[in-house]
Amino acid sequence: MSTESDQQAREQLIDLAAQFYDQFELGEIPHMSVPTRTKTNIEYDEDEKVWVYGDRTSKRSANSVRGARKLLKAVYTIEFLAEQLEEDRSSTLRELYYLSESWDNDEAQFSDQDESNGLIEDLEIVSGVTREDFHMRPEESGATIMGPLHLREQTRRGEREIHCQEDVGEGGYQIPNNPDTIEFLGTDADFILAVETGGMRDRLVENGFDDEYNALIVHLKGQPARATRRITRRLHDELGLPVTVFTDGDPWSYRIYGSVAYGSIKSAHLSEYLATPEAQFIGIQPADIVEYDLPNDPLSDSDINALENELTDPRFQTDYWEEQIELQLEIEKKSEQQALASHGLDFVTDTYLPERLDEMGII
Amino acid sequence: MSTESDQQAREQLIDLAAQFYDQFELGEIPHMSVPTRTKTNIEYDEDEKVWVYGDRTSKRSANSVRGARKLLKAVYTIEFLAEQLEEDRSSTLRELYYLSESWDNDEAQFSDQDESNGLIEDLEIVSGVTREDFHMRPEESGATIMGPLHLREQTRRGEREIHCQEDVGEGGYQIPNNPDTIEFLGTDADFILAVETGGMRDRLVENGFDDEYNALIVHLKGQPARATRRITRRLHDELGLPVTVFTDGDPWSYRIYGSVAYGSIKSAHLSEYLATPEAQFIGIQPADIVEYDLPNDPLSDSDINALENELTDPRFQTDYWEEQIELQLEIEKKSEQQALASHGLDFVTDTYLPERLDEMGII
Repeated sequence: MSTESDQQAREQLIDLAAQFYDQFELGEIPHMSVPTRTKTNIEYDEDEKVWVYGDRTSKRSANSVRGARKLLKAVYTIEFLAEQLEEDRSSTLRELYYLSESWDNDEAQFSDQDESNGLIEDLEIVSGVTREDFHMRPEESGATIMGPLHLREQTRRGEREIHCQEDVGEGGYQIPNNPDTIEFLGTDADFILAVETGGMRDRLVENGFDDEYNALIVHLKGQPARATRRITRRLHDELGLPVTVFTDGDPWSYRIYGSVAYGSIKSAHLSEYLATPEAQFIGIQPADIVEYDLPNDPLSDSDINALENELTDPRFQTDYWEEQIELQLEIEKKSEQQALASHGLDFVTDTYLPERLDEMGII
Repeated sequence: MSTESDQQAREQLIDLAAQFYDQFELGEIPHMSVPTRTKTNIEYDEDEKVWVYGDRTSKRSANSVRGARKLLKAVYTIEFLAEQLEEDRSSTLRELYYLSESWDNDEAQFSDQDESNGLIEDLEIVSGVTREDFHMRPEESGATIMGPLHLREQTRRGEREIHCQEDVGEGGYQIPNNPDTIEFLGTDADFILAVETGGMRDRLVENGFDDEYNALIVHLKGQPARATRRITRRLHDELGLPVTVFTDGDPWSYRIYGSVAYGSIKSAHLSEYLATPEAQFIGIQPADIVEYDLPNDPLSDSDINALENELTDPRFQTDYWEEQIELQLEIEKKSEQQALASHGLDFVTDTYLPERLDEMGII
């Protein structure tokens, strides 16, 4: 029952373990090299337009007891993952941690979940296979989609064909943990509108914004899950849909935009898989707080700190972001997306979004 | 387009406002009485088997500027809600707060969202109409259902008939914000299994537990949203399904069980609408930590504190809970639901749940 991509993932894992055998044969101490995952070791990839790891690596070697134990755990984990793929099963990071208690070698058991999480990330980076392709499910579930999209999802219970307006309730289509089980069959959508809060997502659906503007409304639910970012990237790549991101107007929400557009430092090895560098920010922009006279709150010290950090973050070093962030530091105000309701419940769909989408050249 | 229940909610609201007119005519200072919402003013209702407010009330009266302002805000809010119902629209609590900025009388505007939230709660209690029937959507979205349930949801785009196994992806059916738009068409389910964590929900779905045991798997996503509690109650009442709750084995998770079974002090006026007093706790029980030798963590000081609080909470004063909580204080350990994976990924569906459901007389 396992697919071709499962077979490939399995082979990559077994190749990793085979390296240790080769090293033994050559008389080398077994080791594994992984890129250093720090802010100073990420670089902009001009071709892919995403941030990836640089050349610096750190070495896990069996030349110490601690290092040897790390490699032992890696080998046990590789065996578990290879079996899981063979049997077409899956598990969560937390299950892997607990499952290690059943392994026959006490030294291979994880001492905490940070250790098993870190190891899975190492294996992703070294093998070039994503966690989802190892059949490791995220703990956090993806969000929902509402809009003119027709898709086929391969489930364990067979195929399901779903239209994300006609075949779903008001709650929308629930994105599965691994959206690569989805095939897009067709769409009438002109663009994607990824929305931070549930309240705003519901407003747009109630006002029929997806219908009137042929928009796919993707709910981000705060900092988006991997599944949400992955399906956004695929919708952009495969259907050619522009991606717009609509959040609150504060530095924490700009990070939500950043995680859709650029990915995070922790997962720079996944940028090509999860990030959509062409994603554009709709708002709430600091300029909107002024222009639309939105109800607002003063910036706190930690807001100011976060904005200043963003100014030095390579991913935010564009004219657009420098201008907006500097304006915000000047006006010392932030606003939420639902603050648009101060002009009436339809202001966001009748005025704000159409104006912004027009300015951005999307409609 | 507004329904009969919308008309009733509207009339209840207008009756509230009419009371003030009556009071004026009688030469009384306008006022409104609401039950005191504290732990000492909740009582057990033997008939309904839920906790409700007692007889103590506090009075909002226009005999002070502060009191008069409160009633003014109430009147503006009643007018907004009555219009919203007339037009068959809806809004969120946060939108109401922002919307008040557009009201012509500055004195009627809310100074913060706690104030508008509190007023809506007062109106719910005094009118006997739930927030959902005012068409106030919760900010938090409901979770998902997977299992043999066939339903019809009334959406703004027409009716949708959905089978919660055959017509949904692996993510399941997304519960809408107001589950009273749902009509149950039929079910092959024998019971409901409400599950705290996403990781465990996915494990049960992957292992086909809903199929094999005719279970409706309701994902609670931590502390459950009102929509999730409401649909659970309705599934119990209308389809006669026993409700079981499966959480981590710690005091915070017992509160999740409590909110499904008894409701919260803050929303005791909604207990009859949201709570399912017959809901039973499956586990993780402190006794399970011992019996199944589960990986565990020591109780922290705040865990011990929370357990001791539960011992004095009237809602936990049953033989069952006293025994379990005292055992936990004795063993000083807690375990997560996914700790069952230490016995293998299928232990939960092949052994643990069948044993517990059998003990509880559900299967």
